[in-house]
Amino acid sequence: MLEELKKRVYEANMLLPKYGLVTFTWGNVSEIDRESGCFAIKPSGVEYELLKPEDMVIVDLNGKVVEGNYKPSSDTATHIELYRAFPTIGGVVHTHSSWATSWAQAGREIPCYGTTHADYLYGAIPCVRNLTEEELKDYERNTGILIAEEFMKNDYKAMPAVLCKNHGPFTWGKDGFEAVHNAVVLEEVAKMAARCELINSQVTPAPQELLDKHYYRKHGANAYYGQ
Amino acid sequence: MLEELKKRVYEANMLLPKYGLVTFTWGNVSEIDRESGCFAIKPSGVEYELLKPEDMVIVDLNGKVVEGNYKPSSDTATHIELYRAFPTIGGVVHTHSSWATSWAQAGREIPCYGTTHADYLYGAIPCVRNLTEEELKDYERNTGILIAEEFMKNDYKAMPAVLCKNHGPFTWGKDGFEAVHNAVVLEEVAKMAARCELINSQVTPAPQELLDKHYYRKHGANAYYGQ
Amino acid sequence: MLEELKKRVYEANMLLPKYGLVTFTWGNVSEIDRESGCFAIKPSGVEYELLKPEDMVIVDLNGKVVEGNYKPSSDTATHIELYRAFPTIGGVVHTHSSWATSWAQAGREIPCYGTTHADYLYGAIPCVRNLTEEELKDYERNTGILIAEEFMKNDYKAMPAVLCKNHGPFTWGKDGFEAVHNAVVLEEVAKMAARCELINSQVTPAPQELLDKHYYRKHGANAYYGQ
Amino acid sequence: MLEELKKRVYEANMLLPKYGLVTFTWGNVSEIDRESGCFAIKPSGVEYELLKPEDMVIVDLNGKVVEGNYKPSSDTATHIELYRAFPTIGGVVHTHSSWATSWAQAGREIPCYGTTHADYLYGAIPCVRNLTEEELKDYERNTGILIAEEFMKNDYKAMPAVLCKNHGPFTWGKDGFEAVHNAVVLEEVAKMAARCELINSQVTPAPQELLDKHYYRKHGANAYYGQ
Repeated sequence: MLEELKKRVYEANMLLPKYGLVTFTWGNVSEIDRESGCFAIKPSGVEYELLKPEDMVIVDLNGKVVEGNYKPSSDTATHIELYRAFPTIGGVVHTHSSWATSWAQAGREIPCYGTTHADYLYGAIPCVRNLTEEELKDYERNTGILIAEEFMKNDYKAMPAVLCKNHGPFTWGKDGFEAVHNAVVLEEVAKMAARCELINSQVTPAPQELLDKHYYRKHGANAYYGQ
Repeated sequence: MLEELKKRVYEANMLLPKYGLVTFTWGNVSEIDRESGCFAIKPSGVEYELLKPEDMVIVDLNGKVVEGNYKPSSDTATHIELYRAFPTIGGVVHTHSSWATSWAQAGREIPCYGTTHADYLYGAIPCVRNLTEEELKDYERNTGILIAEEFMKNDYKAMPAVLCKNHGPFTWGKDGFEAVHNAVVLEEVAKMAARCELINSQVTPAPQELLDKHYYRKHGANAYYGQ
Repeated sequence: MLEELKKRVYEANMLLPKYGLVTFTWGNVSEIDRESGCFAIKPSGVEYELLKPEDMVIVDLNGKVVEGNYKPSSDTATHIELYRAFPTIGGVVHTHSSWATSWAQAGREIPCYGTTHADYLYGAIPCVRNLTEEELKDYERNTGILIAEEFMKNDYKAMPAVLCKNHGPFTWGKDGFEAVHNAVVLEEVAKMAARCELINSQVTPAPQELLDKHYYRKHGANAYYGQ
Repeated sequence: MLEELKKRVYEANMLLPKYGLVTFTWGNVSEIDRESGCFAIKPSGVEYELLKPEDMVIVDLNGKVVEGNYKPSSDTATHIELYRAFPTIGGVVHTHSSWATSWAQAGREIPCYGTTHADYLYGAIPCVRNLTEEELKDYERNTGILIAEEFMKNDYKAMPAVLCKNHGPFTWGKDGFEAVHNAVVLEEVAKMAARCELINSQVTPAPQELLDKHYYRKHGANAYYGQ
């Protein structure tokens, strides 16, 4: 069964270069098997061009490597905290994709300026604060805890994305592929929001009723988009 | 005959990813057969990589699905209103192309800054207002009605493009291919207009006589561009 | 001999899509055979994907089509004026390349901000004024005459590029390939100049002595760049 | 042995077009063999599409061509000064990559706005002043000397990149491939820093403790990134 998981996670990882979300090794995807409590994740610092399905590393929710010839991604502890805090998610993605990272570096949440954003992400995409010097001692784990805290006042199912100040984005979804899908949406939305502000420096977020209309076209009991 | 229409609409849809106008399934093309009063349109939410000619859905101008294994695009009702209001058009395109959508999000019409714009689009490209909460109840249909209203004071033949505030663009043409062509032009014009304003924040639209010269090089009785 | 010219001009035209300088048919290259006084140019409005060497049109300096199955580019009269005014050039290019056209739409000359610019183009790249309504009656020809006038106070050999306000760029060179090369340089220089001003709104042109150093590394008796 | 060096330098040079860092011949990579005191470098002005391993030129640290059918890169004297001043480096890269060159033209150092930057480059990326008219007489050599002077107050191992005002970037590394790697990082970081300032004109550099955390995840005795 975990061979299948490794293959899926390999394929989800390979979508990151396909969609132009990574330079070199600056990104990683994981997917969890909730029954066994184990997840597969990209090995740390291995080039995408050389990656193979069998290189994926199996880790449990205590951070123990269960199987694999490589060290797991250095961001593994962040993935673990997200799997713990968000019980219904099955996949997590981290990238340094260019536009989302530019917003993270700017330290701003991304306002919802239109329906492309509203179709997938309900409201402004939050940007969490820097870690304190004390928190930096356990950097990757505390990054995950900080994100989890943010989502005590936000709905992780309706907002499957976050920016970490001066760092970059994390996204999630029901599995690794949906988490990648959300990473692509985030990058496109981040790009259009920045350009939108250039075109109209006085722009305000889209009306709430339009955002609701679009979000609920695709989500919930009355969704009617797709097959 | 409608097999031929499906094939054409499939091919026109496949031009959207070719020209970089869509991410995932965020766009659709339709083309109408005016004799039968039916049009073919992309199915809702089906990935471009998996799309086949036989997947196109045939719909009549009352919105009834005449033939097809899938639900038609969720924007079908907008296409219908445009076919009803604009009697000489044969094709309609909707995308979330990046630059045109950024202008739509900014809520601004695109001024005509040069001949690239004037060659195809006569005057500023309009941006229609948000729908009211009441209008949102029949969202896609009222989007089409709002566009049609805008073109009571504008010539849909000379201006085959519109932006919907906080949403994105629609374009049209004598058939599906020309509608796609206009979607490509719109995106390029939107990009250059935004950059032009960055380079010169005091820029004003191009002189009317230059715009007339270029528009009528390509359109009307005295056109002399092309073969 | 003119078969060879057609082939060269075909190949030079095909470099425009290769270098991303054209959308659809928005560009054209010509090259002249000074002995016969004839030049080959792209036919008007024919798609690059369908173009063949034998489609090139041979025109003389009076604008008479000497050979060809198609009408020549609608910009032919501009090419003629440039060949007449600039006796040592052998090729001319017109495009609507995105960044150069954005500067043309902004109505600004492109200041020389660095050595990439100085390596090929000596000084600021001029932007000529709009034609008057009277001049627009013979639009393409008067565009060429206006450019030629500009270069009575500028050296066409040291500055093989010009912007036409609210329109786009023309470049030239010793043959069609060099004219295309200069069109690529212009687009790259236009892009970097715009971004440079975004990064530093107070930026001033590069020092004259640095520009001289770079220009004369590549041009004139003491050039030492290349083989 | 030097055949192997030529092959490596050829391959490192070919990465520049692969990563989109060069237009035409606007870039060069060298790598040194410290034992023999010779380095291989790209020939001057030869197109990347035509380049072969045997075209690389072998030069010693006095600038004498030891082997090769071509003249070495016109920037050879700069490479020599860097190899002399920075004893532990093995490779040098020069490009006119678009974003890094835009910062160089703007005459600004690139502030460290995030972890993508901090992972590879410790602190702000310096921008050295213009050469004086006197210094321009020995342009390429004095460019190298000026860079070396800058790094008397900066650590060339922790900051393997520099911008030359109104010109462009140089990067270096333990070999030619690492120098290219750093050139790619620099371009990405330059792009995101410019966009970050557009998104937030009041942005300040990332906190020092976060930068230290990221830099030392990848460098030094306690590094834990990668295998």
